[in-house]
Amino acid sequence: MSDYHPPIEDMQFLLHDVLGFQNDDLDRDTCEAILGEAAKLASEVLASLNSKGDEAGAKLEGGEVKTAPGFKEAYAQYREGGWNAVPFDEEFGGQGLPYALAFPIQEMWQGANMSFGLCPLLNQGAVEAISHHGSDEQKAYYLPNLIEGTWTGTMNLTEPGAGSDLGLIRSKAEADGDAYKISGQKIFITYGEHDMAENIIHLVLARLPDAPDDVKGISLFIVPKFLEDGSRNAVKCIGLEHKLGIHASPTCTMDFDSATGYLIGEAHQGLKYMFTMMNNARLSVGLQGVAIAERSYQHALAYANDRVQGKSFQTGERVAIAAHADVKRMLLTMKSQIEAGRALTYEAALALDNGDTAKVDILTPLVKSWCTDMACEVTSIGVQIHGGMGFIEETGAAQYMRDARILPIYEGTNGIQALDLVFRKTLRDGGKSVKEHIDAIRCDNFKKYFEALDMATGALLKAGGDKNLDLASAMAAPYLRGFALIAAGTLLQKSLVGLEGREDKFATEKRRTIEFFNTNILPLAKAHLDVAISGSGIITA
Amino acid sequence: MSDYHPPIEDMQFLLHDVLGFQNDDLDRDTCEAILGEAAKLASEVLASLNSKGDEAGAKLEGGEVKTAPGFKEAYAQYREGGWNAVPFDEEFGGQGLPYALAFPIQEMWQGANMSFGLCPLLNQGAVEAISHHGSDEQKAYYLPNLIEGTWTGTMNLTEPGAGSDLGLIRSKAEADGDAYKISGQKIFITYGEHDMAENIIHLVLARLPDAPDDVKGISLFIVPKFLEDGSRNAVKCIGLEHKLGIHASPTCTMDFDSATGYLIGEAHQGLKYMFTMMNNARLSVGLQGVAIAERSYQHALAYANDRVQGKSFQTGERVAIAAHADVKRMLLTMKSQIEAGRALTYEAALALDNGDTAKVDILTPLVKSWCTDMACEVTSIGVQIHGGMGFIEETGAAQYMRDARILPIYEGTNGIQALDLVFRKTLRDGGKSVKEHIDAIRCDNFKKYFEALDMATGALLKAGGDKNLDLASAMAAPYLRGFALIAAGTLLQKSLVGLEGREDKFATEKRRTIEFFNTNILPLAKAHLDVAISGSGIITA
Repeated sequence: MSDYHPPIEDMQFLLHDVLGFQNDDLDRDTCEAILGEAAKLASEVLASLNSKGDEAGAKLEGGEVKTAPGFKEAYAQYREGGWNAVPFDEEFGGQGLPYALAFPIQEMWQGANMSFGLCPLLNQGAVEAISHHGSDEQKAYYLPNLIEGTWTGTMNLTEPGAGSDLGLIRSKAEADGDAYKISGQKIFITYGEHDMAENIIHLVLARLPDAPDDVKGISLFIVPKFLEDGSRNAVKCIGLEHKLGIHASPTCTMDFDSATGYLIGEAHQGLKYMFTMMNNARLSVGLQGVAIAERSYQHALAYANDRVQGKSFQTGERVAIAAHADVKRMLLTMKSQIEAGRALTYEAALALDNGDTAKVDILTPLVKSWCTDMACEVTSIGVQIHGGMGFIEETGAAQYMRDARILPIYEGTNGIQALDLVFRKTLRDGGKSVKEHIDAIRCDNFKKYFEALDMATGALLKAGGDKNLDLASAMAAPYLRGFALIAAGTLLQKSLVGLEGREDKFATEKRRTIEFFNTNILPLAKAHLDVAISGSGIITA
Repeated sequence: MSDYHPPIEDMQFLLHDVLGFQNDDLDRDTCEAILGEAAKLASEVLASLNSKGDEAGAKLEGGEVKTAPGFKEAYAQYREGGWNAVPFDEEFGGQGLPYALAFPIQEMWQGANMSFGLCPLLNQGAVEAISHHGSDEQKAYYLPNLIEGTWTGTMNLTEPGAGSDLGLIRSKAEADGDAYKISGQKIFITYGEHDMAENIIHLVLARLPDAPDDVKGISLFIVPKFLEDGSRNAVKCIGLEHKLGIHASPTCTMDFDSATGYLIGEAHQGLKYMFTMMNNARLSVGLQGVAIAERSYQHALAYANDRVQGKSFQTGERVAIAAHADVKRMLLTMKSQIEAGRALTYEAALALDNGDTAKVDILTPLVKSWCTDMACEVTSIGVQIHGGMGFIEETGAAQYMRDARILPIYEGTNGIQALDLVFRKTLRDGGKSVKEHIDAIRCDNFKKYFEALDMATGALLKAGGDKNLDLASAMAAPYLRGFALIAAGTLLQKSLVGLEGREDKFATEKRRTIEFFNTNILPLAKAHLDVAISGSGIITA
């Protein structure tokens, strides 16, 4: 029996009634059928492995990583169902489905089992990097297997001395005929080694001889675990991290000892290519936040409906705790923010499909940062609703909180996201795209919030104009928080339009959730923006 | 080498220069000497056991609980140093130190090793219950050993079906001569069984035959592990919980099988007596929040000063991450809230010493709730500052976050605290004491915050007057949050007075921290109070 029920009704409502998803091959019923199939795999297979995977973890034995019991079989089922191919190019065996549909599907994998879902998430980055920047030969050789999922891909960026600051990367690449020899150590490599695929294709940032000693001197290489002739390449996993969460996802230390690698695209362009992998991965991480928050909510709601404790003020009878106003507040705080995050994330998926890069660029840091902070808050509330039981591992609520805690860290910390929003997305073009975006989502009901957002944007641009970049950095985090809340809030307002004429339970609950968001969550947006404007000076003083 | 440095300068400043601590036997130098001795034990012995205890945990073997390696010896050292006796009555061997000094001392145990610190924390509740409500014989027999720490005490309240709702307690007590036979099962009993003391004195809530079937029918019993004749009583630990944090603190399921117990005070008065234990314990839990947040801050600050990553905007040189504005924001968010929480908690300690029960009553839910939510936020930021390393257990940052997560749950969940503030402390006397408290702390600089607090208090009283208790409950959590922020903020303002004329590093840093609190943290108070006023109706609609 599963305890995860993918929120298909919500997903469909959002796509078709709010965001205006249009696709001749994918009408509402077809989407329903596809989502229904994915939901089966997610809830019947992956969800039940989630806590088992947490307990068993992945194990490193003699250089080989054994994933937790059941993971290998589940991955085979996932791959055979064609799910790995969902968003990819049909030319290489992909299903060519739009992100608008691929995101709800991916939400299910992440909600069911985030440790499992990380493998396809990273693979997706590798497919995108090779699709966009690889040679025709590289595409022809790697993509079909990576898309089918017979092989999986990884992103090898971080080194002990180079985290957020990739300019410090020291891994080396030396030419060796048409290929290169790659040497160095990479840490925090998700699914760097495992037993679910026939081959593992590492995308590795390294530095060519004589390369500039900074981010401009980094190149991107393909380093397969098994070479084309079947021989084992000189890359191996030499350690697994002992982590707070996502225990079933092997986080590997990878050693490259003159491993054979192949340059992707041009030399010294690695950072640019990396962002191809990274940007979509950032949206996917935001989606992980929505997904795990939803899972945590479902768990907490079931407990709150079941646990009888305390009395009703009206009847004096003992009631389930879900009937108490303070618990209702917690449940609504979870639900309303999950729905806000989902709207923001799916909106980004549609923008990806529509090639609206200006929108994607702005939404990416909002989605990554806000949805993952939200996931930490929501999963912690999920623990709280369980009372003492929430602190007991067997209950399961704590796992969501532990797992979610990685989300504000990886694929660019949330601090880095805020700097991305401020420097790359706002100051770089003098505020042009941000202002256009804000004008496009402006709505009359939120006048005071947009005034605060306009003022904060103005203050940011002034700091940029004054070359006071420390001040702009200091403003970044609360600016992002306020911006994201308002952006998500406008999408919920759009949802109200999608509900017009409906008086069923779904519509009634959603109206209530939106009203809660507007009156209990959104007011914090103004506080954050005021803080960005008036509270940042002291930081740099 | 220790990585925990008790913040003695801050503690002393708060006591002597801000809160106006006065005691003829305890001048500033004497306090410094006592705090210095405690700091040695905390940093040299207890702090280094913290991560080891987390890893090893406590073990149940054949009904006996073995604490983690080193704990038994550390406890002996703590006891022999006379530390357990600090705040207790000299008549029974206590040192009779005021809470104003006992709190900073206790902060050190909790900051050094919260799992260890829980044992004396619970013992303190037992001492207080027996001191206030026990017979002279009970006092003479139990107090000297409990105060010395040769014996430890526990609080046995929770049952599987009775958590926040103690009216559901089913444990039974039947008269047996002068004593009683106690039967039932209790869960979540901190240090219910362990190997650090010669005897364990359980304070147990149970129901006498024919007792009213509600909280009014609960009585409090003393149930020692070993009886006066040395025989083993029929109480045993039948299970240890597998928890998110505080692994070294054994959380026991206790089985009472016609165990011999002794009634404390009068029958059916157990709930009242329990609050004697509970109220001070609630303040201590708030103090745990301050303590573990401080520890997390010290850890994060050391990392931020050490980790070089990214460049300065001014010099273009690589710098330690502590120099980046966004990291500074995170560090100041930690530090300013820790100092606010410490001020609020020590203020409560002084009120305890002064017998100012009205103040203690109001501060208790604020301290317990706000300082523990703050601890969860701060320890999570501590993880974030470490980036990817924060997610790796060996780093240690994650343990503080895991340990801290119990704080908003135990000794009355933070939701229960908010209801306590609203129903017992505000509505019960028509707002009299709350209004008096607010008027006493009112300061001109925070006019808009006090206006919001007055309005929210008015709205609460109106809901109470309208008998709309659901609405009052719905308002409780954000009301408490806003109230606590303002109360803490006024104490920080008082600190500014204590700094007058000083231009040293301590004073400069503290002014900056307070300015940060005022401009970056306090603005949320108004948002919370506005939410309480305008956002609570939708919850009960």
